[in-house]
Amino acid sequence: FDRALYLFVHGKMFRATFVTPVCFVHMMLIFIENPSEFSGWEGRKEVAMGMDMCCILFHLLHFCVRLGLRHSGNNSMAEDAALAKVRFSLRKKLMKVRRFFGGRTEQFEMFAFLIAIAMLIENSVYLSEDYGTARFCRCLRVVYLVDAQPLLKRLVRNCLSSLIALREVLLLSAAVILFFSLTAIVVWPPATTAEGATHFYSLHRAIMSFTFASMGAVNFPDIMLPAVNEDFRSTCLFFMCFMVLVVVWLLNLCLATVYQQYRSFLSKRALHQHKTRRKALLSAFILLDIDSDKVIEKDDFLTAVRKVRDLDSDDAKELDFLWNQCDMDKDGTIDPHDFFSVCDILVCTVKKKSRSSYHIVPSPYDGDEVSKEEAQGWNQGRSSTRSLFNRLCYGGLLPQLRAILIQPFFSSLVIGCILGSNVILVYAANAKLSGEEEPVWCEQVEYFFVSVFVVEVIIKMLAVGVNGYINTPWWKFDFFVTIASMLGIALDLQSSASSFQQTSVPLRMSKVLRTIRLIRVVSRVKKFRMIISTSTKFFPAVPRFLLLICSILYIYMVIGIESFSFPTQTQWEHATNNTSYSDMVYEIPSSGADSATYADMSYSKNVNFQTPQNALITLFSLMMVNNWHIIHDAVEVACSSKWGVSFYFVSFHIIAVIVVMNLVVSTFLESYLKEWMKNHLNRQDVLEKTIVLDDGGRGSVVNNTSSNSSDQIITRAIQERTLVCYTCESPFTWKLKSYECSVTRKICCQNCCKLYVEPRLDIAMRSSPKLLANFS
Amino acid sequence: FDRALYLFVHGKMFRATFVTPVCFVHMMLIFIENPSEFSGWEGRKEVAMGMDMCCILFHLLHFCVRLGLRHSGNNSMAEDAALAKVRFSLRKKLMKVRRFFGGRTEQFEMFAFLIAIAMLIENSVYLSEDYGTARFCRCLRVVYLVDAQPLLKRLVRNCLSSLIALREVLLLSAAVILFFSLTAIVVWPPATTAEGATHFYSLHRAIMSFTFASMGAVNFPDIMLPAVNEDFRSTCLFFMCFMVLVVVWLLNLCLATVYQQYRSFLSKRALHQHKTRRKALLSAFILLDIDSDKVIEKDDFLTAVRKVRDLDSDDAKELDFLWNQCDMDKDGTIDPHDFFSVCDILVCTVKKKSRSSYHIVPSPYDGDEVSKEEAQGWNQGRSSTRSLFNRLCYGGLLPQLRAILIQPFFSSLVIGCILGSNVILVYAANAKLSGEEEPVWCEQVEYFFVSVFVVEVIIKMLAVGVNGYINTPWWKFDFFVTIASMLGIALDLQSSASSFQQTSVPLRMSKVLRTIRLIRVVSRVKKFRMIISTSTKFFPAVPRFLLLICSILYIYMVIGIESFSFPTQTQWEHATNNTSYSDMVYEIPSSGADSATYADMSYSKNVNFQTPQNALITLFSLMMVNNWHIIHDAVEVACSSKWGVSFYFVSFHIIAVIVVMNLVVSTFLESYLKEWMKNHLNRQDVLEKTIVLDDGGRGSVVNNTSSNSSDQIITRAIQERTLVCYTCESPFTWKLKSYECSVTRKICCQNCCKLYVEPRLDIAMRSSPKLLANFS
Ligand code: NA
Ligand code: NA
Repeated sequence: FDRALYLFVHGKMFRATFVTPVCFVHMMLIFIENPSEFSGWEGRKEVAMGMDMCCILFHLLHFCVRLGLRHSGNNSMAEDAALAKVRFSLRKKLMKVRRFFGGRTEQFEMFAFLIAIAMLIENSVYLSEDYGTARFCRCLRVVYLVDAQPLLKRLVRNCLSSLIALREVLLLSAAVILFFSLTAIVVWPPATTAEGATHFYSLHRAIMSFTFASMGAVNFPDIMLPAVNEDFRSTCLFFMCFMVLVVVWLLNLCLATVYQQYRSFLSKRALHQHKTRRKALLSAFILLDIDSDKVIEKDDFLTAVRKVRDLDSDDAKELDFLWNQCDMDKDGTIDPHDFFSVCDILVCTVKKKSRSSYHIVPSPYDGDEVSKEEAQGWNQGRSSTRSLFNRLCYGGLLPQLRAILIQPFFSSLVIGCILGSNVILVYAANAKLSGEEEPVWCEQVEYFFVSVFVVEVIIKMLAVGVNGYINTPWWKFDFFVTIASMLGIALDLQSSASSFQQTSVPLRMSKVLRTIRLIRVVSRVKKFRMIISTSTKFFPAVPRFLLLICSILYIYMVIGIESFSFPTQTQWEHATNNTSYSDMVYEIPSSGADSATYADMSYSKNVNFQTPQNALITLFSLMMVNNWHIIHDAVEVACSSKWGVSFYFVSFHIIAVIVVMNLVVSTFLESYLKEWMKNHLNRQDVLEKTIVLDDGGRGSVVNNTSSNSSDQIITRAIQERTLVCYTCESPFTWKLKSYECSVTRKICCQNCCKLYVEPRLDIAMRSSPKLLANFS
Repeated sequence: FDRALYLFVHGKMFRATFVTPVCFVHMMLIFIENPSEFSGWEGRKEVAMGMDMCCILFHLLHFCVRLGLRHSGNNSMAEDAALAKVRFSLRKKLMKVRRFFGGRTEQFEMFAFLIAIAMLIENSVYLSEDYGTARFCRCLRVVYLVDAQPLLKRLVRNCLSSLIALREVLLLSAAVILFFSLTAIVVWPPATTAEGATHFYSLHRAIMSFTFASMGAVNFPDIMLPAVNEDFRSTCLFFMCFMVLVVVWLLNLCLATVYQQYRSFLSKRALHQHKTRRKALLSAFILLDIDSDKVIEKDDFLTAVRKVRDLDSDDAKELDFLWNQCDMDKDGTIDPHDFFSVCDILVCTVKKKSRSSYHIVPSPYDGDEVSKEEAQGWNQGRSSTRSLFNRLCYGGLLPQLRAILIQPFFSSLVIGCILGSNVILVYAANAKLSGEEEPVWCEQVEYFFVSVFVVEVIIKMLAVGVNGYINTPWWKFDFFVTIASMLGIALDLQSSASSFQQTSVPLRMSKVLRTIRLIRVVSRVKKFRMIISTSTKFFPAVPRFLLLICSILYIYMVIGIESFSFPTQTQWEHATNNTSYSDMVYEIPSSGADSATYADMSYSKNVNFQTPQNALITLFSLMMVNNWHIIHDAVEVACSSKWGVSFYFVSFHIIAVIVVMNLVVSTFLESYLKEWMKNHLNRQDVLEKTIVLDDGGRGSVVNNTSSNSSDQIITRAIQERTLVCYTCESPFTWKLKSYECSVTRKICCQNCCKLYVEPRLDIAMRSSPKLLANFS
C-alpha cells in the first residue's frame, strides 16, 4: 500500500489537482491580509489568518507523507536491479550512502517541511502581538508553487545556473562602475562643483548614479547636464565612453553568457535524457533476459510475452513475425544492439503518425501538391455512407461549397470587407476625437461588415465540416475574432440604453471587441502568418515564464510591503515630499478634462509600496526599467537606509531584467532560429547544409560553415539526385522516399533512418511533403 | 597609363591617405559653419564656406576620374580572359550589356558625382541669400565617407538588408500599436476621462503614447496612472498585456530577425568568397594552360616559371621537387583537381605559420607543457652569441631573473600592492567626501605603491626583453596602467602648486590616471581575463560600428539643426515653456552646492537642437532611449508639426536602436559564442561534438544535437583513440598529430587535413597545443 501512496503523492495528477490550487490560494491571501487601511471589508484579517493556517497545515501534511514514505526504504524494483548489476563495488557503496542522505529531491522535501514549521511559528508570534510584527516568511509560499510545477522547477534551476554563470560579468561591471564613480568624485568634488553636489555628493550616491546610468540609462542625459556647461568636450567624452562601454560591451556580455548557458543547458538535458533512456532500456533488457546470458533467446521472449497475455494458437504466427522484426541481424537471438535499435525505430515511427488522419481535408489551396481529381475523389467517397451529424462534423454537409472557397473572388471580397471595416473604425475614432458626434451611418456599415464575416464562417463550416474548420489554424483565429465582434455589438446595444457615465470600466472595455476586427488583417497577409507561425514555437514556454515572473514579483512584493510601507498614505507623501519623486507631474495639455486633480497623475499616489496593488505597479515598472532612479531616491529618503534600499532595487534589476529577461530572449531566439531554419531549408537557398556525394552515389550532409573546397560541392549545383540509401544501399524510388537522418547525417531510406526525420534537402526544393489541411 | 591611374584611384592606399581625411574635415565643418550665435570666433562663416567648396571640388574631381576611366572601356586582363572562356553565348551578351550600364559600383559613382553637383548648387543659393536658406545637402557628406571605407560600406549594406528583413515585423508592430490606441480612444474618451485628456486626446497623441511605451517603455508608469485610480484591475490588465506583448514578443522578434539576417549574411559572404576564389583559380589555371588542352604539362609549367625567373642549371632540381609536389596523383600532368587541392593546402599551411617564431618565449608559467630543462636550454643558447642591444630586446639582459617571476611570493606581493593601493584610494575618496581634508599619509602610501609597480615592470623587462614584454598581452595592459599612474602623479604635483579653481576640467580629468590602478585588479583574476579575451574577438568590429553610428548621428544632426533650431536660445525656451520639458528639473538634495542655477540642470538649456554640440547630446540620449517622449513633446510644441516630428524621432529610433543596436548585439553574440566554443572544446565537457568510429578505427565528427542512439557514441566514453587517418589511413603517432578537418568533418593527419585546423577533440582533453608566451 505504501508504494501506491508514494506514487500517488509524488505523481503529476496529485500536484496539478491539489497542490497547485492550494499554492495559488495561499499566495492570493496577500491581497486581503495586508494590515493597511486600504483593502476592503470588515473581519478580513481573521479570515485571511484562518485560510493561511489551513494552507500551511496542508503543506505540512503533504511533505510529512513524502518524507515518511521516502525513509521507509522501499525503493522501486528498477533501482534494485540496477544496483545489483553495478560492477565496481566502490560505486555500489557510494550509491547506498547517497540514497540514505538523499539526492536533491530529498533535501528539498526536508527544506520545504522546515519552511512550513517556520511559517507556523511566525503566524503564532504575529497573532500574539495582535497583528503587530512583520511577516517575511510569507514570501516563502512561492517555494511550494515551484515544487508543484516540474516545468517551473526546471526553469528556476536554469535561472540559478545562469546567475552563477553571470558572477564574473557582474563583478566586472561592479569594478567598472566603481572605477568611474571614484574618478567622478575626484574630478567633480561636491564642495566646489554643481555636478558633484547633485550626483556625486557621497560614495553611495556616486555608485548609484553610475548604476542608474548603466542599468537602463534611466538618468542618462540628466547625469551629465550640470557638467556639460563647464567643459563640453571632456565631460561628453567621459560619460559617452562609459555609456558605450556599458551598453555595447557589458550588457551584451550578460546576454551572451545567459544565451550560452541556456544552450549548454539544452545539450546537457538532451544528453541526460539519452542516458536515462539507455539505462531504462538496459534494465528492461536485463528483465527480459531471464537466464541472464546477455542475449534474449526465443523462449525468454515467449515467457515474457506469456506474462503479458496468455498465448493461443493463432497468436504464434504474429509472434514469429514480431520475432523476425526484432531479430535485426537474423542470428536467432536478440543481442543488446538489436534491442536498442528496435526501440529507437519504434520511438521514431510513433512520432511520425501522431496526428490522426481522421480529418485530413485535402486542401484545394495547396497548389500543385493536391491535384483537383484527388480532392473530388475524396469528397464522393465520404459523403454517401455516413450519418447527417457525422457529415456535419467531418467533411461538411455541402462539400460542393468548396468550389466557392477556391474562387479568388470570394477571398478578395472578404479582404475588402476587412479593410473597409477598419477604415470606418479609424474614421469614427477620429470623428469622435475632434468632438463631433459619431456619424450614424458608421454603425450601420459596421453591422453590415460583421454580418458578412458571419456568412463567411457559415459557408466554411458547411464546406469542410465543424471539425475540419476548427482544426484549421487560421480559420480558428478568424472564428474567434468574428464571435468577439458580435459580442461587442450585442454589449454595445445593451449599454447604449443606460447613459455612458455609470457603465463601469470593464463594460467599456468590451468596446475592445469592436476594434478587434483590425487583427483579422494579420491573418490575411502571408508574411504576418509566417512570423506568427514561427513565433508559435515560443508560446508553450510563455506560461512557465509568466509563473516565474509572478513568483519573483511576489517575493519582492512581500519584502517591499513589509519594509517600505507606512501606516497611512499621508505619512508616505509627507516622507517623500521634498524629493524629485513628488513633482513628477505632467500638465494636462488639452483643456477638456473634468476635475482630474494633479494627485491622480503624480507617482506618490500610485507608485509606492503602500498596498499590494501599488507594489505590483511599482515592481512591474521597475521591470520595464523606466524612472526607477526616481522611485529609488524616494524610498531611500523615506526609509533613510541607503545600502539596504539600493541592494533591494539592484538585486531586483539583476534577477528580473538581466537573468529572466535575457533567458526569455535566449529561449525566443533559439526557438525562432530553429523554426526559421526548418522553414527555409524547404526553400531554395540551402546554404546552411550541403550534400557531399561519394563515388557510389551515397550522400552525406555537411554544414558548409567554412568554405568547402572539395569538388563534389560544386557538382551539387547540377542537382544530382542521391541514388542509393547510405546504409541498405537500396535505390530511392517515388515510393521509397529518402530522408536525412540527423543522427548519422547520412541520406538513407525510411526504415534505416534512425531518429529525427527531416524532409530531404535537395528534392525538398521541388515539393515539400504534403501539408495537412493548410488553408491560406 | 590609364590602367595605372585607375588602379591607383580605386586602390585602398589612395582612399586611406586622401579621401578619408578629406571626408572627416568636410564633416567636421558643421561645428563652425552653424549660423547660430553660439560658436566662436569672427569670420568663421567665410572660412567654413571656403573649406566646404574645396572639399566638394575634391570629391567632384575624384569621381570624375573614376567615371572617365571606367567608361574608357579598358577592363582588366582577367575580365577579358574570363569573358573569352564563357561557354554560353547568352551569358556573354548579358555580361557585355551589364558592363556598359555598370554594376553597383558604377551606379554609385554616378550617384556620388550628382551629389557633388547638388552641393555646389545649394552652396551658391546659400551664398546669394546671404547665409539665409537651409542647407540639407550637408547630410549627404556621409556618402563619401561610406564610399571611402570598404568595411563601413559592407556594414551599411548589412544594415539595409536587415531593415528590409524587418519590414513585416515593423508593420506588425504598427498594427498592434494602432489596435491598442484605437481601443484606448474608445475606452477612455478625452471628453469624459482624465486618462483620455492626458494621453489620448487625438489619434496622433494616442499612437505616440503607445509608441513611447513600446520603444523603451519611456512613459510606462505615467501612461496608466490616471486610469488606475478609476478601475485598477482592468486598466492594469490592459496596459500590462500590451507591455508583455511588446517587450516579450515584438522586440525579441526584431532581434531574432536581425540576428538571423546577420547569420545568412555571413554564410552568403562565405559562399561568395568561395565562388570568387574558385573563379580566380580557374582563370589562373586557364592562363597556365597555354596549349589550352585543360591539363598543364611539364613544359607549360616550365614556360610559366621562366616568365617569372630566368632558370639556370641548379634550379632544375628544385623545379622537379616542386613539380612532384604539385602533381598529386603522379600522372605526369596537373589536372584542375590537383591544382585546386594544391592551392587549398598552400592557403591552409600559410595560415598556420603566420606568427613569426622570433620571440617565442618558453613561458615558465605554462605548467607541464614546457619542461624546466627546455627553458634553461633556450636561455643558454641565446645569451652568449648576440649583441647587448639585441639581447635587451629579444630574450632579456638577465634571463636568470625569470626564476623570480615564477616565485609565488613575487606575484602575491604584486597583488597585495594592487589591492592595498585601491583600498587607500576608496578611503581617500570617502574622507574627501565627508568634508575633511585628505590625510597626508595617503599621498605617501600611494607613491610607494606606484614605485613598486615601476620596479615590477623593470624586472620583467630585464627578464624577458623589451620585445618579449611588449608582446605578452596582459603585461602590456599592466605597463600602460603603470605609465598612466606615474603621469597622474606628475600632473598632480604640478597642478597642486596652482590653486584648484582655475585648473580646467581636462587637467582635473588627469585625476582619472590616479584611479586607473583599480583596473589592474582585472588582469589578475583568471575569470576576468577569460571574459576579456573572449570579448576581444568583437573589438575589431568596434571602429566600424562607431563610424556607422557617427554617420547616422551626423545625418540626423544636420536635419535636426536645420528644422528644429530657433535663432536664439531664449526663443527656444519661450517656445517650450509650458510643456513638461521645461520643468524636468531636479532639486539639489545636498546643500553644499555653490550658485548652480536651476537652468544648469534643466533640459531646455542643453538638450535641444540649437547648436551642433547640443544636438549631439540630444541624439545620443535618444539612442540611449531615455526620456525621449519629453524631448519629442517639446519639439512638437515648438515646431508645431505633429507627424513630421514624430516621423523624425521614430525613424531615428528604428534605425539607431532597432537596426544598429541589434546588429551590434548579433555581432557580439556570434563572435562570443564561436570563441566560447573554441575555448571550451579544449576543456573536458566535449558535449557539442562527438566522434563516431567506424570498424576500421576511422573517426568522423558528429554534432550530437539530437540524442545519438548508435552504440559507438557510448564507447567514446572509454576514450578509444582514433587509430588511422580517414583519408591516407596512416596510423597516428606521437609525431604525426591528428586534426579534425572542418571541411570533411573527419579525423585526418596534418597533410590530408584540408582547411581549418582545430586541435583534435578526444586527445585535446589531455594537453592543449602549446600556447605561445601565455603568461599569467
Ligand atoms: Na525615463
Ligand atoms: Na527610461
